[in-house]
Amino acid sequence: MAKELVFGHQSPDTDAIVAAKAFSYLQNQLGFDTEAVALGEPNEETQFVLNYFDEPAPRVIEKAGSEVNAVMLVDHNEHQQSVADIDDVAVTHVVDHHRIANFETASPLYYRAEPVGCTSTILTKLFDENKIEIPTQLAGLMLSAIISDTLLLKSPTTTDDDKAAVIALAEIADIDYQSYGLEELKAGTNLSAKTEAELVQQDAKSFEMGGKTVRIDQINTVDLDEVFARQAKLEAAMAAEAQANGYDLFLVLVTNILDSNSRLLVWGEPTAAVEKAFNTTLTNHTADLPGVVSRKKQVVPPLQDAF
Amino acid sequence: MAKELVFGHQSPDTDAIVAAKAFSYLQNQLGFDTEAVALGEPNEETQFVLNYFDEPAPRVIEKAGSEVNAVMLVDHNEHQQSVADIDDVAVTHVVDHHRIANFETASPLYYRAEPVGCTSTILTKLFDENKIEIPTQLAGLMLSAIISDTLLLKSPTTTDDDKAAVIALAEIADIDYQSYGLEELKAGTNLSAKTEAELVQQDAKSFEMGGKTVRIDQINTVDLDEVFARQAKLEAAMAAEAQANGYDLFLVLVTNILDSNSRLLVWGEPTAAVEKAFNTTLTNHTADLPGVVSRKKQVVPPLQDAF
Repeated sequence: MAKELVFGHQSPDTDAIVAAKAFSYLQNQLGFDTEAVALGEPNEETQFVLNYFDEPAPRVIEKAGSEVNAVMLVDHNEHQQSVADIDDVAVTHVVDHHRIANFETASPLYYRAEPVGCTSTILTKLFDENKIEIPTQLAGLMLSAIISDTLLLKSPTTTDDDKAAVIALAEIADIDYQSYGLEELKAGTNLSAKTEAELVQQDAKSFEMGGKTVRIDQINTVDLDEVFARQAKLEAAMAAEAQANGYDLFLVLVTNILDSNSRLLVWGEPTAAVEKAFNTTLTNHTADLPGVVSRKKQVVPPLQDAF
Repeated sequence: MAKELVFGHQSPDTDAIVAAKAFSYLQNQLGFDTEAVALGEPNEETQFVLNYFDEPAPRVIEKAGSEVNAVMLVDHNEHQQSVADIDDVAVTHVVDHHRIANFETASPLYYRAEPVGCTSTILTKLFDENKIEIPTQLAGLMLSAIISDTLLLKSPTTTDDDKAAVIALAEIADIDYQSYGLEELKAGTNLSAKTEAELVQQDAKSFEMGGKTVRIDQINTVDLDEVFARQAKLEAAMAAEAQANGYDLFLVLVTNILDSNSRLLVWGEPTAAVEKAFNTTLTNHTADLPGVVSRKKQVVPPLQDAF
């Protein structure tokens, strides 16, 4: 069987990196020949996780078609979030927890999506269904991915399946997930060392809505005001990114992981769609979104509806 | 939980009808409130199957949005193969064994696809994973769907999973699947009572390829010449259907289920794409395709590549 690459989305977060490693491991156990790779370097939270469990970061690739004819996607499916030459290779497997859009294949494939909080939760089930044991370190990584995606099981995306997976994985990894989880999330909020250009793209994804390209980034913090003290420079960085890449509308969702509230920073047009989506009025390009922490569940669907 | 409808594709075959009944039953056992419906009347083979196991045909619907806000799809995903108002309802679940195309959701969903021969094979696994027993009559229906889709396990779409499901289901239904299967397949080949208009649309599906709408029908028979004795009238029926519905290219794949060979009948343009796809030359609008029995695996992918 020819080798395939396994990878998550661009601007990878912990789940994108970890799910690639986990699915690659599982598929290799099942007889496939795969390698987990990534579409970018690990962010600070992911680096903390990899260091903690003494696991290497996956190799970063720019293109897939020069190495393989077929790939497996985790934690994404939309082509604009995938490898640059995704249209030149066959997608044989997808494991994901997002909506399906801008995705098309010529042949039947394996596709497993569930509306749960994290791809690693689905992968935990897949190991179980296939009766493959999860190695200790990998369990620690998968646990970390669920903590990251669900903000320690507090995001509204959290399901009973995520909770069950966290408990099972914490037992395999022999970790107190509450104290470890807070430490992990805080590792991702050390923003002072980052430039504004880094902040607005570190967790950014593109979406096509009503013919417009909408870029949505999320920044986790323990202090909203600390981030908004840099608002002017953040807006300049958003404008530069948008003009370089053709984004029409750029949203940065700044989320306080301690109290689960967010403030939105908006660049570009149509701002009317943003105001309609969240039933709010922008003040100085910002809007408070109390209780909003999930881009996938609380930002993309209302915005899509507004467009 | 609000009620949802479960259905397969237009011009339903045995799997489209049976998979809807099976997935609806499974989901209801898991706590959902669903009803299996169909986008058309059962064909002769399906009617034979329903009679044999003393099961009613699902209610036929024209639209879904007047009854429910959300639906579950089986055995298809492409919107042009689905209910007319599919864009007005939310799709919460899909179980399918086809390529993914022309499918998009605003929210995350449950999606289970595997590259196996029949949706009912995947459903057999789902019952097992969820530890729900398959009732005797339903097992007979699901067995019949796999026999239909895989031509009694002889189609190249057949996988080890299909074979395992057939053996498991035959045991539950207490059926000799070889002798029953031949009887079932022959029930679908009684073509003399059908008009040419019925024949060219009974198992037809639409595909978008290179900006063209391609219609592909399949007719099972035990005698190719008997079907092609009606070629002139079949072509007239294809032309009428194409002109009424805006198909650019119309293919009818006539398959001999006894020796697993097919002959193709072609109406419309571009015929060059057809000749390129199958590396053949059309003679009197026809081409022999030895060993070709699967639309999904042996017709759609090469045609897509040729476009």
